[in-house]
Formats: sequence, structure tokens, C-alpha cells
Amino acid sequence: MKLYGYWRSQATYRVRVAMNLKGITPEDETIDLAKGVQFQPGYRAVNPQSVVPALFDGPGPALTQSLAIMEYLEETHPKPPLLPRDPRDRARVRALALIPIAEIHPLMVPRVRNYVENDLKLGEAARVEWIRHWVGLGLAALETLLAGDPRTGRYCHGDAPTFADICLAGQVIGAQNSDCDVTPYPTVLRIHETCMKLDAFSSAHPRKRPDAPKALAKGP
Amino acid sequence: MKLYGYWRSQATYRVRVAMNLKGITPEDETIDLAKGVQFQPGYRAVNPQSVVPALFDGPGPALTQSLAIMEYLEETHPKPPLLPRDPRDRARVRALALIPIAEIHPLMVPRVRNYVENDLKLGEAARVEWIRHWVGLGLAALETLLAGDPRTGRYCHGDAPTFADICLAGQVIGAQNSDCDVTPYPTVLRIHETCMKLDAFSSAHPRKRPDAPKALAKGP
Repeated sequence: MKLYGYWRSQATYRVRVAMNLKGITPEDETIDLAKGVQFQPGYRAVNPQSVVPALFDGPGPALTQSLAIMEYLEETHPKPPLLPRDPRDRARVRALALIPIAEIHPLMVPRVRNYVENDLKLGEAARVEWIRHWVGLGLAALETLLAGDPRTGRYCHGDAPTFADICLAGQVIGAQNSDCDVTPYPTVLRIHETCMKLDAFSSAHPRKRPDAPKALAKGP
Repeated sequence: MKLYGYWRSQATYRVRVAMNLKGITPEDETIDLAKGVQFQPGYRAVNPQSVVPALFDGPGPALTQSLAIMEYLEETHPKPPLLPRDPRDRARVRALALIPIAEIHPLMVPRVRNYVENDLKLGEAARVEWIRHWVGLGLAALETLLAGDPRTGRYCHGDAPTFADICLAGQVIGAQNSDCDVTPYPTVLRIHETCMKLDAFSSAHPRKRPDAPKALAKGP
């Protein structure tokens, strides 16, 4: 498989962790979002939407959207499972995963934060506050749903990682990279730390990616 | 099953159409978002996140997040299928569904549009322009992906409705309700019109819901 991504992309992180957990090592191709490579004809031919990730498994066309790709990996490489077996439990895991995917991350992707800062002419401080506001609201929702449900275990659902943990971990990293305070969400933070003990999660950390700026690699 | 929703909610629309297509008639409970009923203790006990829809199938806890609920319905009531059989095709349908779910709709939900209008003090015109901008970008992406792929048929994927059509139809209705011009996206519009010929889609239209303001019911 060939994965088009970018070191800082939260959606790429999700797909990479899912592949790591399933023991799949893709060929990597970096699309430098900071340089606008996603808008060049070469990448537009891969994904006309000009966003990452995109995954080729065979001839194509590319698979897109991180959750659609994770479901594809789950269907084609079922072991180890990243969703529980019971439909009701699967619905819970997917619902937890969708809080980062459909509520938090869409408000902090580059095109939106740039629009707030530049197109709306609100400036950098407003952009920072914008991200903090939506990250805080979303992580508070996750915290409530996790802390109040006996199905929460070492991970979001029981004692093995699922889609929900992948999305939670990616969102906490994104929050930390945007200088958001995650300490008010102790269950979220505990699960994030549990995830980071697994090489599948920690080796995919943006800071550790070969295409990340070298100065970042020294962080904790 | 018991469905908590609101006539204008795009996410509720998705679940309702999926249930209609599968021949499931839920007991309905309206949560009046305009009056803030979602924040009252009664509904918080159903869904601590204070958003709709929420679905009870048996004792609970409630299922939340429209896509997670649709996947649950697909797993527990497989006929008629709302996803194709081949994993690659399923990935395409889910990716198309995720454009409304994770890219367009999150930027136009009440809490975000109210934040733009009131908290950022940008006013009504900026809120309208905000919605138009993101709806336009998202529908343009859908149009490109649909028009450029031979797997597009009468519906988004072949000749039977899937998750992708449900999300497309809900998003077009949402765009129309926000006075966005959808005519630049002919494939999107054609598929929307095809969907609306099915009672499963048209009977779930916000205007036709019993909890909608009566003045709306007369529209086309």
C-alpha cells in the first residue's frame, strides 16, 4: 500500500496508527501541505479534494477520508480488530471516534483556521482562541462520555485499542501542538498516555515522522 | 426504537432516512433545539453531549452520532443494504458520506454559526457568508468526486441509495435552508432530486416533520 500524508496531519496520523496496529507498513509519500503541494496537478490526480491522507491499495483510485480508510482496513485486515464485536459496542466506539472526526478536528484544519485568521481578518490571537474553544468543548464531551460509562477501560472501550483511541490520541496531539490545555480532561489524558506506551501510537507521532522539521524531534 | 431528534437537524434527517429505507418506524421525541431543551437535565440524561439525534434500541444507553447510528442499523438490519458489498466501494461511499459529516456540516451547526455571529461579534451577514463559503467548498468537492468517477450512477454509487446519498440529500436541504446556491453542482443536484422522488427521503424533509413550524409545510 502507498500512503500519501503529511507529518502534522491528524487524519494521516489516524490511518498510520491503524496500519501500525494491523502490522501493515505502507510506502510513504509526503505531500508538503505547508508548501501547497496538495494543490499541484500531481496530487490533484491522486485526490481532487487536495487533502491528505490518500491510500492506494493496488491500482486505485485512492481511498480517502481517514474513517473510511480505517473501516476499509478493518474489513480487509480484520486482525487485530479495532472495533468490538457487538453492534451496540461498535456504535459506541464509532460515536467516540466521531467526536474528533466530525466535531473538533473540522474546526481546526488549516483551511478553517487560516480563514478565521486571514479571511475574517481576526488575527492570530483570535485563531488561537478559536482552536482552544472548540478543542475544549470537544474534549469535555469526550471526558463526560468516557468517565460516565462503565465500558471505558484501560482504553476508550475495554482493554484493547479501537478507532476511538486512535482518534482520541490524534486529537490530544493536535491539541498539544496548538498549545491547548488538556489537563482538565483526566480520563482523556490517561487514555492518551496509555496509547502512547504502544509503539504503534508513539512511532506515528508527528514529531517522529521523517518529514517533520528536525528541530521538533528532540521533544519529550 | 425511540428517536430523539429535531425537525431541522441534518444529523437527525440522516438517521430518519436510513430507518425509512430499512422499514423501521421509530417512536419520535422532539428535542426543541431552538428552546434549548437539549441542555435540560432530562435530555442530558439521554445524551450528555446535548446534541441530537439519539436513538434507543432497547434499554440503552442511547446511541449517538448519525454515522455511528447508520452503521449500527446496517449491521442489525442489513436489508436493504445501504453500503455496497466490496470493501473498496464501501470505502468510496463512506468517504463521500464523510464530506457532509466531517467537512461541511460541522461548520454550520448551531453552536458554530452562533459563535461566528455572536461570540466573534461578526453579525448576521458574516454568519451567512461563513455558511455559504463552507457549503460551496464542500459541495464543489462532492461534485468533482461524483462527476469524475464512473461508479457514480443514478445515485452516488450505482443505482441504489447508500449512506452517501443520505448525507448528500441532508446537506443539500441544509444548504437550501441557509439560502445557499446549489445550482453550480449539477451532479449533486441531480442525485438530490433522484433521492427526493423516494418517499424515504422526501417524507423526512424538515418541512414535513410534525414538529416543524406550520408555515413551512406549504413549500414546494
